[in-house]
Amino acid sequence: MRKEEEFSDWYNEAVEKAELSDKRYPIKGMNVWRPYGWSIMRLIDQAMREEFDATGHGEVSFPVLIPETEFAKEAEHVKGFEGDVFWVTRGGFNALDVKLVLRPTSETAMYPMFKLWIRSHADLPLKVYQIVPVFRYETKMTRTFMRVREIHFFESHTAHASFEDAEQQIREDLQINERLMRLLALPYRIHRRPDWDKFPGAHYSLACDTLLPSGRVLQVGTFHQYRDNFAKVYDVQYEDEKGEHHFVHQTTDGMSERILGAIVAIHGDEKGIVLPPAVAPVQAVIVPILEKGRQEEILQEAQKLFLELRERMRVKLDDRDLRPGEKFFAWEARGVPVRVELGPRDLAKHAVTVVRRDNGQKRELPRDGLPDRLRSVLELMQIDMWERADKLLRENTSSVDRLEDAKDGINRLGWCGDEACGKAIGDRTGMNVLGTPFYPEEFDGKCVVCGKPTKQVVYAAKAY
Amino acid sequence: MRKEEEFSDWYNEAVEKAELSDKRYPIKGMNVWRPYGWSIMRLIDQAMREEFDATGHGEVSFPVLIPETEFAKEAEHVKGFEGDVFWVTRGGFNALDVKLVLRPTSETAMYPMFKLWIRSHADLPLKVYQIVPVFRYETKMTRTFMRVREIHFFESHTAHASFEDAEQQIREDLQINERLMRLLALPYRIHRRPDWDKFPGAHYSLACDTLLPSGRVLQVGTFHQYRDNFAKVYDVQYEDEKGEHHFVHQTTDGMSERILGAIVAIHGDEKGIVLPPAVAPVQAVIVPILEKGRQEEILQEAQKLFLELRERMRVKLDDRDLRPGEKFFAWEARGVPVRVELGPRDLAKHAVTVVRRDNGQKRELPRDGLPDRLRSVLELMQIDMWERADKLLRENTSSVDRLEDAKDGINRLGWCGDEACGKAIGDRTGMNVLGTPFYPEEFDGKCVVCGKPTKQVVYAAKAY
Repeated sequence: MRKEEEFSDWYNEAVEKAELSDKRYPIKGMNVWRPYGWSIMRLIDQAMREEFDATGHGEVSFPVLIPETEFAKEAEHVKGFEGDVFWVTRGGFNALDVKLVLRPTSETAMYPMFKLWIRSHADLPLKVYQIVPVFRYETKMTRTFMRVREIHFFESHTAHASFEDAEQQIREDLQINERLMRLLALPYRIHRRPDWDKFPGAHYSLACDTLLPSGRVLQVGTFHQYRDNFAKVYDVQYEDEKGEHHFVHQTTDGMSERILGAIVAIHGDEKGIVLPPAVAPVQAVIVPILEKGRQEEILQEAQKLFLELRERMRVKLDDRDLRPGEKFFAWEARGVPVRVELGPRDLAKHAVTVVRRDNGQKRELPRDGLPDRLRSVLELMQIDMWERADKLLRENTSSVDRLEDAKDGINRLGWCGDEACGKAIGDRTGMNVLGTPFYPEEFDGKCVVCGKPTKQVVYAAKAY
Repeated sequence: MRKEEEFSDWYNEAVEKAELSDKRYPIKGMNVWRPYGWSIMRLIDQAMREEFDATGHGEVSFPVLIPETEFAKEAEHVKGFEGDVFWVTRGGFNALDVKLVLRPTSETAMYPMFKLWIRSHADLPLKVYQIVPVFRYETKMTRTFMRVREIHFFESHTAHASFEDAEQQIREDLQINERLMRLLALPYRIHRRPDWDKFPGAHYSLACDTLLPSGRVLQVGTFHQYRDNFAKVYDVQYEDEKGEHHFVHQTTDGMSERILGAIVAIHGDEKGIVLPPAVAPVQAVIVPILEKGRQEEILQEAQKLFLELRERMRVKLDDRDLRPGEKFFAWEARGVPVRVELGPRDLAKHAVTVVRRDNGQKRELPRDGLPDRLRSVLELMQIDMWERADKLLRENTSSVDRLEDAKDGINRLGWCGDEACGKAIGDRTGMNVLGTPFYPEEFDGKCVVCGKPTKQVVYAAKAY
């Protein structure tokens, strides 16, 4: 665990050195995605699309703006968001009759259209998703990827014939989440958010929480069961086989650029970021080590190697006129998983030198069959990164009997289930109550606040 | 040529029947991309990315909002746009100190950052692009894809050491444009826009114009040479080898969802839209023609065919429990290039029946080697679609000696080069002056307004 301040400085520098994002744009918390950062995000977008497409979601794109009249329909929802949104009040030189909100999330944009699209049971389930920017008028301190005012956002929205169908959807979402988090090498916990802190308008909310090396938790995904709460407000009904009308039951699944923040924070080191091979724009970089008189020969072999590897991975040949050390430094900062060095000695041995970014391990590998060998290295690295991060998560999750023993990291506490006791946990420790574990856990003890016997636990941690 | 009103009705219906976009969203001119429409756009996005990535452009993503202070720096630019933008004036419950504009285009967002990114000649050329929504407070009548308030936009921005380098970039842009327009089966003309109608802040502007069957022109792309106009305003300088400082020279290349509007308009027919195979989400649909008692056998063969074709194209097997006629109708409306029918008679002959969407041609093709044969059909269709549209463009471009002879379609007129005469062409005919041909044309005649002898022509047409 690092100290928060030290972590912050390190994090900002890692983001900058890797050229992921530029926060010097003249609006606080609205950052510029630079090509390298965006190319990582493109790969993550692609992984999301594959998951959602494969599970029968259609990709849509809704307008950025929502009329105040629609936005304000669901009372809890508008109360939860109205202090956090940007308002468009003028078009050209005219004041607008109806003010427009820059979407903070898209329930109130989508559900008036769901009402038009859904007629009968044959239209259900309706499953859509979009990958779009959303906006929050953030007044707290901002931090690249973690707390920004323009957020690269993934949101799926579904409508079902029954509550049970919607529950089934949440289970599918959790499976999608598991596959994505494996790809991103981000171990996590699923919590059911406390009732007093669920998404405005939801029946219940689940959160996917990761632990950063600062000892704080970052919520990177949410899954909401809306029941028919929004359907009643936006009048989204369907006709069943018997001609009877019912409100639909709805769910959402949301993730954001925070997952990139989590990758940077969890896997980065003193040299910069470290990317899981699955989402690395460059999975291997070839650096020729040139020796006077043999430059031509080495470069030719490097070129040949490049063409071979290109069939099996995203590879780059760095033949710039720079010293190898400078190149190592630059690619390490960018988190490229594997470096392949090719020098005169390697050439003589018909081998290459391979360096793994995550653990610095240096190995000589035979030149023959290198594409296959390197694929194995990448796959191994992908697993090792998960394991290492999972260890961090497990080692920093502790069961605590007394509030004053709460530590950095995630705390597991007995809880009687009363809202008052739950809130007291947060108030007395400065931690956030993450919620109850989604996957049931055995417990037999006392509420950490009131001391009543209980079989229930709750998790709490400092959070971003 | 169709009458404008008839064309409008047909166009709207074609968009709706194909489920491309829904214009019932409660803000005028802000439409919802439905999954099928968006899947076409995703393929177009992909083609754009391949072109820009291959020519050394980095993909970036800038914030949607621009502070008024940056937006207002270039006098001509702000004058050209201030009446057309949406203004964010409030965040939460607070009035903002600095108002924010929803970008109508990104010069004023990007160039303050270019100033930070460009130091020396080694940083040049700087070439970036983004695929993002842009916004116009459109007060005229809106039309899906053609004139909307939230626009799916492609914009590349480059900075160079010299005017000549920037000129070279424009030539590269035109090559990219040619490749894309071939893919989209959209024949076009390149015009140099008249000086009084160029992009606000540009040194000169080129436009890529297509002709729709309504006899009107749709501008689908623009290429702007900025010289150092913006660089001077945003102080974007570089240091050359000798340590001297110079302003950069800049260009942009812009396209939008209008290209999809052009595809719908130019290639569609009474049955709906027709998609060029290169951007069709489903390139071939297999429709089994079931006969009682042999359903199992036919479905099995259809499944086998699907698996074979899937290796070579984007294919769908429509095994829904509907009559074949209903399926034909649905896929025709969606513009799927090729329909493969498989019935008992085909099975007996070891053949399939293939129907081309663009010309309705029906052919029996042997079952053996079908993937290759179908690929050929798709390639042929791609070419035929271009040829057919090119014929429309050529046949409706006419040289005209007198203003009163101007026709629907594109008119070629002698022009002395004076602004007054140029504007008179527009004023007297109600047409738009598209500009002078980018690729020089022979001419020896008179100015259509003042009668002075001239070797120059200008093109004019009614435009969207």
